[in-house]
Amino acid sequence: MTLNVGVIGVGMIGQDHIRRLTHVLSGARVAAVTDVDLDRARTVADDLPDAGLHASGAELIADPGVDAVVVTSWGPTHEEYVLAAVAADKQVFCEKPLATTEEACSRIVDAEVAAGRRLVMVGFMRRYDAQYNAVKSTIVGGGIGLPLMMHASHRNPSVPDFFTSDMIINDSTVHDIDTARWLFDDEIAAVTVLKPRVSSKARPGFNDPLLVLLEMSSGVLVDVEASVNSGFAYDIRGEIVCEDGTVELSESAGAIVKKAGHFSGRVPADWRERFSRAFDTEFQAWIGAATAGTSTGPSAWDGYAATVVCDAGLAALRSGAREPVTLRDKPDLYKSDPSRETRW
Amino acid sequence: MTLNVGVIGVGMIGQDHIRRLTHVLSGARVAAVTDVDLDRARTVADDLPDAGLHASGAELIADPGVDAVVVTSWGPTHEEYVLAAVAADKQVFCEKPLATTEEACSRIVDAEVAAGRRLVMVGFMRRYDAQYNAVKSTIVGGGIGLPLMMHASHRNPSVPDFFTSDMIINDSTVHDIDTARWLFDDEIAAVTVLKPRVSSKARPGFNDPLLVLLEMSSGVLVDVEASVNSGFAYDIRGEIVCEDGTVELSESAGAIVKKAGHFSGRVPADWRERFSRAFDTEFQAWIGAATAGTSTGPSAWDGYAATVVCDAGLAALRSGAREPVTLRDKPDLYKSDPSRETRW
Amino acid sequence: MTLNVGVIGVGMIGQDHIRRLTHVLSGARVAAVTDVDLDRARTVADDLPDAGLHASGAELIADPGVDAVVVTSWGPTHEEYVLAAVAADKQVFCEKPLATTEEACSRIVDAEVAAGRRLVMVGFMRRYDAQYNAVKSTIVGGGIGLPLMMHASHRNPSVPDFFTSDMIINDSTVHDIDTARWLFDDEIAAVTVLKPRVSSKARPGFNDPLLVLLEMSSGVLVDVEASVNSGFAYDIRGEIVCEDGTVELSESAGAIVKKAGHFSGRVPADWRERFSRAFDTEFQAWIGAATAGTSTGPSAWDGYAATVVCDAGLAALRSGAREPVTLRDKPDLYKSDPSRETRW
Amino acid sequence: MTLNVGVIGVGMIGQDHIRRLTHVLSGARVAAVTDVDLDRARTVADDLPDAGLHASGAELIADPGVDAVVVTSWGPTHEEYVLAAVAADKQVFCEKPLATTEEACSRIVDAEVAAGRRLVMVGFMRRYDAQYNAVKSTIVGGGIGLPLMMHASHRNPSVPDFFTSDMIINDSTVHDIDTARWLFDDEIAAVTVLKPRVSSKARPGFNDPLLVLLEMSSGVLVDVEASVNSGFAYDIRGEIVCEDGTVELSESAGAIVKKAGHFSGRVPADWRERFSRAFDTEFQAWIGAATAGTSTGPSAWDGYAATVVCDAGLAALRSGAREPVTLRDKPDLYKSDPSRETRW
Repeated sequence: MTLNVGVIGVGMIGQDHIRRLTHVLSGARVAAVTDVDLDRARTVADDLPDAGLHASGAELIADPGVDAVVVTSWGPTHEEYVLAAVAADKQVFCEKPLATTEEACSRIVDAEVAAGRRLVMVGFMRRYDAQYNAVKSTIVGGGIGLPLMMHASHRNPSVPDFFTSDMIINDSTVHDIDTARWLFDDEIAAVTVLKPRVSSKARPGFNDPLLVLLEMSSGVLVDVEASVNSGFAYDIRGEIVCEDGTVELSESAGAIVKKAGHFSGRVPADWRERFSRAFDTEFQAWIGAATAGTSTGPSAWDGYAATVVCDAGLAALRSGAREPVTLRDKPDLYKSDPSRETRW
Repeated sequence: MTLNVGVIGVGMIGQDHIRRLTHVLSGARVAAVTDVDLDRARTVADDLPDAGLHASGAELIADPGVDAVVVTSWGPTHEEYVLAAVAADKQVFCEKPLATTEEACSRIVDAEVAAGRRLVMVGFMRRYDAQYNAVKSTIVGGGIGLPLMMHASHRNPSVPDFFTSDMIINDSTVHDIDTARWLFDDEIAAVTVLKPRVSSKARPGFNDPLLVLLEMSSGVLVDVEASVNSGFAYDIRGEIVCEDGTVELSESAGAIVKKAGHFSGRVPADWRERFSRAFDTEFQAWIGAATAGTSTGPSAWDGYAATVVCDAGLAALRSGAREPVTLRDKPDLYKSDPSRETRW
Repeated sequence: MTLNVGVIGVGMIGQDHIRRLTHVLSGARVAAVTDVDLDRARTVADDLPDAGLHASGAELIADPGVDAVVVTSWGPTHEEYVLAAVAADKQVFCEKPLATTEEACSRIVDAEVAAGRRLVMVGFMRRYDAQYNAVKSTIVGGGIGLPLMMHASHRNPSVPDFFTSDMIINDSTVHDIDTARWLFDDEIAAVTVLKPRVSSKARPGFNDPLLVLLEMSSGVLVDVEASVNSGFAYDIRGEIVCEDGTVELSESAGAIVKKAGHFSGRVPADWRERFSRAFDTEFQAWIGAATAGTSTGPSAWDGYAATVVCDAGLAALRSGAREPVTLRDKPDLYKSDPSRETRW
Repeated sequence: MTLNVGVIGVGMIGQDHIRRLTHVLSGARVAAVTDVDLDRARTVADDLPDAGLHASGAELIADPGVDAVVVTSWGPTHEEYVLAAVAADKQVFCEKPLATTEEACSRIVDAEVAAGRRLVMVGFMRRYDAQYNAVKSTIVGGGIGLPLMMHASHRNPSVPDFFTSDMIINDSTVHDIDTARWLFDDEIAAVTVLKPRVSSKARPGFNDPLLVLLEMSSGVLVDVEASVNSGFAYDIRGEIVCEDGTVELSESAGAIVKKAGHFSGRVPADWRERFSRAFDTEFQAWIGAATAGTSTGPSAWDGYAATVVCDAGLAALRSGAREPVTLRDKPDLYKSDPSRETRW
């Protein structure tokens, strides 16, 4: 059986997921596309075998030939499409953010709870990365004791001109926020954002790098260096300090070259090089679950919590102070959440 | 368009490829299976949607519903099935060895040359491994000069009781033989096999480990440590020494753990852990090529050359002397071979 | 010419320095010893060729056969001995702390300034460690731009029962405080101490680990994980994030063992294993300078600044808030300080 | 007590040992020097406090103010000076080679055996290197089983014009020969030398690199890549394959830099950078033993065996064949040799 997928939003990430569904993964095909730029959507559809074109997301979701929906449109439109998919009782994969406000996320949670089953998966792909899963297995395995601290670095080589300080929180650190929640199976209780010396490569008025401190409910303290003008590579680092030892992501170079007085290995150039395989694994998991009529991985609750923590992070960036995080009560639907299980 | 694949031989590796075709990769489905053990074939077919069962390889190959053939049966049967597929003008993926004798391989080469186009791909999956491709890119890139030597280690943690000294050459070192030919785009001119102190874990009469020396036509000297009772892991190592530097496979652990006075990382437990991703990439390349009506990757010539070199290796294991390798003239079909291009 | 050294305090570290002066390094001998425990001093003196025994530090310093003085007594006694050595116009090497209060350190600075030349060296041995010097050379070399942040970890495997939370600041983090001042050639402007989840191995009432945040005057932000019950090893880590790249201390294992499914390397068991060579280099530098009638390396000003920052750290540990650091004006004697130059 | 050392030969290595004895190590001084170039010897002596100048090695050895002798003159003169020191009953440290012919080495062994005690130490400094000792401890510790093979690389960045192919055996590989004998506490039974493709950087007629195969009496097989035009660094590698695991020398970079898409670490530029500390440790061991009236470390027997194996290596380089090694019976003096014990 083949899952017929409708894709809303065919920008860079949308087209990458279409490539994945069409040429890489097993069990799915793209049945329909749409985009705010209809010409772009038409061009994409023309390249696909038997893919329909829709004038709007609502129309695509209503199409009986669409079994499940991928939302890769602009963030502020996510709420509308995810709610419509839930209303249509169709599985939906939504790229982060789930929605751009706490209230919007909460409405999605309410809708899914009312539906009585998991319909929403949010695209936090690190949960499907082999290295992060090796780290999580080590922690869960228990051989190095309870976690106490985590040191993380999230380094982008550079960012386009439209990138703002806020986006360091909302677009970069959001992954570390989800990673911390997932690794420790715990919520974040407070956020503080510190501002080191500003890189001369940052645009005027831009605070980069940042040191973001996340306090987990358990007391585990996470420090995240977020740098979006690191200059040299896309470098994702992480070390978890436990009571009896530590575990850290290893460098991922495939080959070591010795030359001109040095040995050296490659650091990934961008997120595609680093996480391409995790995106494949994540999407294959979604196809499998959606085909079986259920959802898996990061839930609407995870999307809600990430947005609330990001809001606290933005407040902390402005106030310079520690900002507490308050979450609504967690619905039963999300307890004993299979998304918290190790995938690898 | 979906490629309908027939699988001959549903043992461990055959079933693994069926899983890959069915649940992992895009663009293919298993349309028919057969096996010398028909009951086993029936059980496998019953688990697949719409897969036919055939009483013999010949019948499967003749099935008009089969577009392309995968041969994963016992080595001595390969020649028959590959020749039949070529005769039927169907693309065929054959696990190594292409055939078990020089003469059989040569007959396949002749048949493919007579057909006038590439129909055969041999399963040397290391050519699709990310690490080996990073190594090859470095050599081809030219920044470290011409290659002079290669040091390799091929370590199996242990082998079953039926494993013999000859199989160290035919089943383990054969991969290093293909790797050397591919990395240096060159043929092997002579083989010597040295016998170090025998491991106490080797069965009586068994020479393990071996040091296999391969002399390339260019003069590049390759030394391969082949150990099938290494005890600790499946450890594949390689370093190429060039005029201005070296390049080596890095360790592949995803996480580094610090505990009890040491840092440590995982070495793969077996070939599945180490090369699973390369098998996926190799098979996806085959599906793409076969769908387009052509072949790619390791050719019948590569299968032929590997078998000739293995034969020289067996002679060297017995004689203790340097054994020259003589290949037939290379047909034009295999010159400027796309299989020699870097894949990654 | 041989430097005749008097040693005040012959506990563990004093005896280690005596061994160094007697059996390892060139150009010095131990001419006299004393200790608050005179019997212990006598035992030590009896093992040395021609070493005198003195009833007090004052007497030892006054001995005309003593050219230079090593102070390895209990911290609260340091001020008295260092001031006496300065008054006697003799070079003095003082283990950290220079003195236990800001006022005492200030008095030593005043005395040395009045003397008009460098007479005091403080035992911050990391400045003589090859790895830290490789890091500093990289920063000073300028190839990776201006420093923005530093991530450090200071992990002791365990501590004796008399160890307190305050000692994490005064005895462990003090080295990171000096390292940050030296690496960046800058003063510390403020300190914050965060308290992660407490390790179950810490004694009741003990905050361990800590995350100590040091803000340099330049804005460089330093985070130091200080763990004194890390359980697994003496693990000193550091990475400096600059505008165009990073530089970090490498792991220091001499051999890599592959066994039982893993590769592994040793992490040092204690500070002796990690810094033994740095102590040798440091002491040889002191002997050379003292023989030439001058001082080198970490100065009284460095000792003063470290003590003031530690005091702020203790206040921050108690207040939970950011505590600013205020230093007196820096005397001219310590400007263009040779101790700030890279030694390696 | 200070050991008064006379140094015969004040070229580069002689002057380096004089620096070591004078400024680095404890317990010795240079009491006298001589050299075939007396002007050079005079210049060196003038820079030293109270060092006598002698017109010949014989005169220096006869000087009652010389307690022990260091021979760092041209290889062919070693025999004369070592025999004279033994005749004078003085401890002698001789840089490799002990002597340039098997017969000369044998005469030294006879003389020392006649003297009835160890008087001679040969400068194989790798036995005092921390990394090699970590490797040896692992093997001796037994946790990874009996050794079966060793893979080694000995890479010089470049060599001066006077360097010949023979010197790859006599000056480079001789260290690997001693290392193999020491690590495995065993003699070498045969040598084969293979000639890979020649580097374009080698002078005409020069075979570089070489692959030297050493067969230990136990059957352990050692392959040594010897490259003297490696271009990039002084790179010394080694991995010992045992029955249950392997142990290898780690890379020795002090700092890892991330920049321009790569992480990188330094490989030593020359033997001084790599083995400077081992020379110090070796010499301090000799000073200690000589002061106590005995010898330690690599013995005359080790010097003899190395020369015999090098001669077989030269024969193998010429013949292209396996050349057996035949040693005289080992005198009792060298049995249970303390030089075979791990030093670290």
